[in-house]
Amino acid sequence: MAEERDPEGLAAARPLLTDLYQATMALSYWRAGRARDEAEFELFFRRCPFGGAFALAAGLRDCVRFLRAFRLRDADVQFLASVLPQDTDPAFFQHLRTLDCSGVTVRALPEGCLVFPGVPLLQVSGPLLVVQLLETPLLCLVSYASLIATNAARLRLIAGPEKRLLEMGLRRAQGPDGGLTASTYSYLGGFDGSSNVLAGQLRGVPVAGTLAHSFVTSFSGTEAPPDPMLAPAAGQGPSVDLPARVEVWLERVCAHLRLGPQEPQRGERAAFVAYALAFPRAFQGLLDTYSVHRSGLPNFLAVALALGDLGYRAVGVRLDSGDLLRQAQEVRSVFQATAAQFQAPWLESVPIAVSNNIDEEELARLAQEVGRPGRGGWRLRGGGPGRETQLPRATAFPQGSEVDVIGIGTSVVTCPRQPSLGCVYKLVSVGGQPRMKLTEDPEKRTLPGSKNAFRLLDSDGSPLLDVLQLAEEPPPRAEQELRVWPRGAPEACVVRPAHVEPLLRLCQPLPPLAESRAFAQSCLGHLSPQHRRLEQPAEYQVALSEKLRALVDRLGGAPPP
Amino acid sequence: MAEERDPEGLAAARPLLTDLYQATMALSYWRAGRARDEAEFELFFRRCPFGGAFALAAGLRDCVRFLRAFRLRDADVQFLASVLPQDTDPAFFQHLRTLDCSGVTVRALPEGCLVFPGVPLLQVSGPLLVVQLLETPLLCLVSYASLIATNAARLRLIAGPEKRLLEMGLRRAQGPDGGLTASTYSYLGGFDGSSNVLAGQLRGVPVAGTLAHSFVTSFSGTEAPPDPMLAPAAGQGPSVDLPARVEVWLERVCAHLRLGPQEPQRGERAAFVAYALAFPRAFQGLLDTYSVHRSGLPNFLAVALALGDLGYRAVGVRLDSGDLLRQAQEVRSVFQATAAQFQAPWLESVPIAVSNNIDEEELARLAQEVGRPGRGGWRLRGGGPGRETQLPRATAFPQGSEVDVIGIGTSVVTCPRQPSLGCVYKLVSVGGQPRMKLTEDPEKRTLPGSKNAFRLLDSDGSPLLDVLQLAEEPPPRAEQELRVWPRGAPEACVVRPAHVEPLLRLCQPLPPLAESRAFAQSCLGHLSPQHRRLEQPAEYQVALSEKLRALVDRLGGAPPP
Repeated sequence: MAEERDPEGLAAARPLLTDLYQATMALSYWRAGRARDEAEFELFFRRCPFGGAFALAAGLRDCVRFLRAFRLRDADVQFLASVLPQDTDPAFFQHLRTLDCSGVTVRALPEGCLVFPGVPLLQVSGPLLVVQLLETPLLCLVSYASLIATNAARLRLIAGPEKRLLEMGLRRAQGPDGGLTASTYSYLGGFDGSSNVLAGQLRGVPVAGTLAHSFVTSFSGTEAPPDPMLAPAAGQGPSVDLPARVEVWLERVCAHLRLGPQEPQRGERAAFVAYALAFPRAFQGLLDTYSVHRSGLPNFLAVALALGDLGYRAVGVRLDSGDLLRQAQEVRSVFQATAAQFQAPWLESVPIAVSNNIDEEELARLAQEVGRPGRGGWRLRGGGPGRETQLPRATAFPQGSEVDVIGIGTSVVTCPRQPSLGCVYKLVSVGGQPRMKLTEDPEKRTLPGSKNAFRLLDSDGSPLLDVLQLAEEPPPRAEQELRVWPRGAPEACVVRPAHVEPLLRLCQPLPPLAESRAFAQSCLGHLSPQHRRLEQPAEYQVALSEKLRALVDRLGGAPPP
Repeated sequence: MAEERDPEGLAAARPLLTDLYQATMALSYWRAGRARDEAEFELFFRRCPFGGAFALAAGLRDCVRFLRAFRLRDADVQFLASVLPQDTDPAFFQHLRTLDCSGVTVRALPEGCLVFPGVPLLQVSGPLLVVQLLETPLLCLVSYASLIATNAARLRLIAGPEKRLLEMGLRRAQGPDGGLTASTYSYLGGFDGSSNVLAGQLRGVPVAGTLAHSFVTSFSGTEAPPDPMLAPAAGQGPSVDLPARVEVWLERVCAHLRLGPQEPQRGERAAFVAYALAFPRAFQGLLDTYSVHRSGLPNFLAVALALGDLGYRAVGVRLDSGDLLRQAQEVRSVFQATAAQFQAPWLESVPIAVSNNIDEEELARLAQEVGRPGRGGWRLRGGGPGRETQLPRATAFPQGSEVDVIGIGTSVVTCPRQPSLGCVYKLVSVGGQPRMKLTEDPEKRTLPGSKNAFRLLDSDGSPLLDVLQLAEEPPPRAEQELRVWPRGAPEACVVRPAHVEPLLRLCQPLPPLAESRAFAQSCLGHLSPQHRRLEQPAEYQVALSEKLRALVDRLGGAPPP
């Protein structure tokens, strides 16, 4: 995977990408003489998304880019002046012109790290006015990135490790940058690549794509390619008139499939030939523009076998409508029979790609084991270290999923089960003093004080609990007993972790995206059964140290004043 | 409303913002000698979003910007070369370097126009290779914009014409540009403004915002403002020590509300004073950081009354948790009693703003008429020209909604009822010949041929049906009978429209955003009852002319070959 190349990708995340109240508060802090007070905020969420038991942290690389570039230009300050009171002291705007993030420190969970409710994804400390201004852009950059990385991770768990998952939701995203973010972080979460070329160019995401229905319908069959000749794959021997060779194969294929030679649509075949002439080493057929069985499949086979004569191997077919599981089985069955008929064994295993509004339920169906219809792949494969032994096929007709590649658009990009993560950014200390929002809604109370976070691990590396404690407390130690207060539990408990990992670190330099992806996959591989659940939160995920718990009691234990 | 200022806003929508298959098809068209074939595509959706009966067209201004700037730079072509076959003819890349949209014609529905399923939002014609490359970016730019404009229009219909609706979902959007698009097009759809400063700067959307909980919790009450003095609003007379005056008022307010003078939280009061010193003409209190009744409300009243002594009028309060409708009633009741107690009649009508995960159901509750609890505003007000007469209040305690301003984030930005519009971009003709995708899924069949679209209107201006016909047909005429085939109806029908409007037009110049917003609101005002439904599609929305219907029969009537 290439390193990232994003000289301009942050264009949309500009300093005024913020809520107006950040600017009005900035003026008020400044007027109150508090602009430079040292403050610390934490960015976290309150519940794991999608009703599941885990989330992945993501978006940090966009935050780092944003913070590095953060500076209000004259035009920005002028715009703020136009929406703030006319008699605002000009010295305030002068102060705004001097701002940057050189005084801001960010500690963060690394991208791809598992994250649980209440644990800060980011700790941001620095001058009160500046770190307040950063609230909205940081929330914007982290929330969706983490949501889609988590969504992609769920889809990966459901699909199992072997299906190729492609994100193709650019057209369903919230505008251009939504699409770019989706492609970037679905890759981080476990997808294999994206259709989005810009994500390849700017972020180094592997890109994939072949042809659409419009390409097929654009051909009527009367078009003559300017150059129909194709040289053999090995480069030796005479070139061949590909369309003529395809017509020869079409007759054989139709006889084999008991179709009339006029049944396969001419325009579709012309389109396949045109694509094959441009991509002889990467020919893929889109089968369902007219009729899969009576047109798309025989046309594909004729072109694939003609290419085969020249030493080229078709790389796949795609189905984009109807019952994808059933059709993939039927197509595989035809491949097998045709491979036997024409002594073309490579044809048996041509990858079958599917797309068309695939959601988690449909993905589970498409991921079922060969030979075990009706069970989702994630149930069979999710818990164990490897793929279960494949059962021998009972009949020639495949019984499980024959799908190799799955393209997902809407369901990955829009996260329809929960389209927003709901991250918040809360003040935890000012001038070294802890701060707490009490409110009458207990779920909205915050945890005060500058903190540290540690992950307590079992001997197999799976997470037991995350512990939040005050920054001044010594870190927990492996193999030592620790008394903590799990959030939501009626009382304290004692844990004895085999390993302890500090979670928050200064966030530079960032690893390349592909490295973060590998880290995410390794984290997911260590999830305990109760944390890998997709439909039910884990019982306890996060605990407070005794000291932090005492501080919460002191500041918030009494009924609100 | 300011005109738009977007010199850089299209940064994210770059030429490679497309699916890779557009590039592979481009190479194949080129290899087949068809790059310059004249082709026409239509961009449309198949069902109105959210289960309703209408949608608003939007996103055109972003398309126009994108098309104007469309040109592949060297770096773009080099990236494409890196993902296409190594032996690709260099002449293809040379061809890519020459591309722009000068040969592309776009006809479109104006922004803010009502749009129904199957009617093209865009018709794009030009060289096949170029108009194919444009598919993904145009879908990306139109789909979400139209979805959120429609979502905002629904929320406006539910809220009725008088509530002030503010979009504040930047932090819940799909990254920076998702937020910018959301702010822009929710304004188009009927919101009054946004919290998003960048949308103000780049798009001229009115912006709004005051203060957050973090501002309140950042004050402990020990901070002394460097300058506590405030001059009277009229500019005449001596300045006053605002915090001291607030303490005087606090005592009176607490006595009136039967609270101990120590109950209201000091830090919160210090925060309100700091905000009031910065914004004496625009003071707003956020009431629920600690306790609305025992702290936020008395602190707000003390500051508001102290400002009142100086001739300033507080502009509002905000509630962000709990039962918003009930609390607004209680707050209004306290305002009324306090206004009477202290002869401050202006206090009675201080606007009450609410926020906190407001969705359509909660909005209907918050929009209920004063004096008519339990009925959604959109039922009462939706159909009629104006607001119904207010009933006299039966008691001093308000019975309906006392909410004036409603901030909506997640529900407007993420469109949780349907997070994607599902627009498609389909080839309808090549070289003047109609093209049709047949497929075995009847819903995915396309309507062939280059078309025109007309809206048939009733005498009151409400839409009866949209008619799609072939480009060569003469337009329907007002007051003349027309035989058409409504989609989904068993047979043809005859209509006699009072007015006929052509729907598609060349799309430049575009009106300013605020003008498109006004156009959208006027379109919504003319919706017939069956088209303004939020929960049920209209029976028939679109019809085909007899000629178009005959073409469909000819190309698709026979079973697929």
